[in-house]
Amino acid sequence: MQVGRVVGTVVATRKSLSLVGKKLLVVKPLNCPPDKVLSIVAVDTVGAGIGDTVLIVTGSGARASDNLDSASVDAAIVGIVDSMEVADNGS
Amino acid sequence: MQVGRVVGTVVATRKSLSLVGKKLLVVKPLNCPPDKVLSIVAVDTVGAGIGDTVLIVTGSGARASDNLDSASVDAAIVGIVDSMEVADNGS
Amino acid sequence: MQVGRVVGTVVATRKSLSLVGKKLLVVKPLNCPPDKVLSIVAVDTVGAGIGDTVLIVTGSGARASDNLDSASVDAAIVGIVDSMEVADNGS
Amino acid sequence: MQVGRVVGTVVATRKSLSLVGKKLLVVKPLNCPPDKVLSIVAVDTVGAGIGDTVLIVTGSGARASDNLDSASVDAAIVGIVDSMEVADNGS
Amino acid sequence: MQVGRVVGTVVATRKSLSLVGKKLLVVKPLNCPPDKVLSIVAVDTVGAGIGDTVLIVTGSGARASDNLDSASVDAAIVGIVDSMEVADNGS
Repeated sequence: MQVGRVVGTVVATRKSLSLVGKKLLVVKPLNCPPDKVLSIVAVDTVGAGIGDTVLIVTGSGARASDNLDSASVDAAIVGIVDSMEVADNGS
Repeated sequence: MQVGRVVGTVVATRKSLSLVGKKLLVVKPLNCPPDKVLSIVAVDTVGAGIGDTVLIVTGSGARASDNLDSASVDAAIVGIVDSMEVADNGS
Repeated sequence: MQVGRVVGTVVATRKSLSLVGKKLLVVKPLNCPPDKVLSIVAVDTVGAGIGDTVLIVTGSGARASDNLDSASVDAAIVGIVDSMEVADNGS
Repeated sequence: MQVGRVVGTVVATRKSLSLVGKKLLVVKPLNCPPDKVLSIVAVDTVGAGIGDTVLIVTGSGARASDNLDSASVDAAIVGIVDSMEVADNGS
Repeated sequence: MQVGRVVGTVVATRKSLSLVGKKLLVVKPLNCPPDKVLSIVAVDTVGAGIGDTVLIVTGSGARASDNLDSASVDAAIVGIVDSMEVADNGS
């Protein structure tokens, strides 16, 4: 999984039926060199909002989340991070 | 998922039976450093066209899309983006 | 999916039973910065040859291809590209 | 799989039910250029702790681990590395 | 799949039950810019040894290999490469 920050929202009216009613959030992975990683669009499953630090699961694991088992998704927010402790040089 | 722009089309006459009748579009991920990411060829499932900003799902999630469950695909366009709001520094 | 060019072949006598009789081709993704992406070894399912521009599917989607459903593969050539049109700045 | 070092912990109170009771550790892949790879948050399945050198499995393989088969995870610690021998120029 | 060279071994006493008795080898992908790709730890399924040039399958395809269908693995050595021919400019 990755830890990221919710930085935005995506609205799509015309979309796969499996995405109807899902909240799509833009998440920026933390500790990520600015020239390296795209923001990820993830389906929210825990009530996250802008500014929250969240846990993201990608790939088929995203469909193990609540109500997403047959949805066209490859990324889901599965937790809101309360705290993260990383040792020196851990980045 | 990723947000990208549809920039082209691919025509392949000789192909897997599971791809017959599928529209193959070339999508360029947004916010993507030009030297970093390849364009993606994705199967359209929502009637997207050149210039549209779209939502792409990759990996096995692409086969959760309508009519693609046993197709040889790893990327599908599953939504047309109406709007995307990203907070400052969100990129 | 990605578009690439077939640039070589791989011969392996000792291999997984599921790969016996499969043609292994080396494919170089197109529009790929030379220092960025490895060539991919893909199983041919459409009769591709050296120099052909092909459509590659990677990951579990490769096993959705004909006769590969229980094979140890993560990349397959699933189409021969006749033409690819990309708008300006599309790369 | 990858070899990494456990460098931290993540606490998330609000999360997917499938993650309740799971220990989430931050792992930094070894031999990894500092500007290249994000730390990974992985579910511990072997009793690892800070400073341990561990074996990580990512993707759907993480859910083949004990008690994780229907969890929203994409990375798991599946071994504690006793020793790793790499030939010259191997890194 | 990727072609790589076996450069080392990993020993882990405490590990997932599904990995007991499996040989874990460190493989360095070929044609790989030194600053780009980590070595991969892969389960050997073909009797490979240090110095061998091998074919690696990653992701869920690794579990399509002999005796690995329910193991916590994301990479397997599935062939020993006898020869690899790549056209000029193919890298």
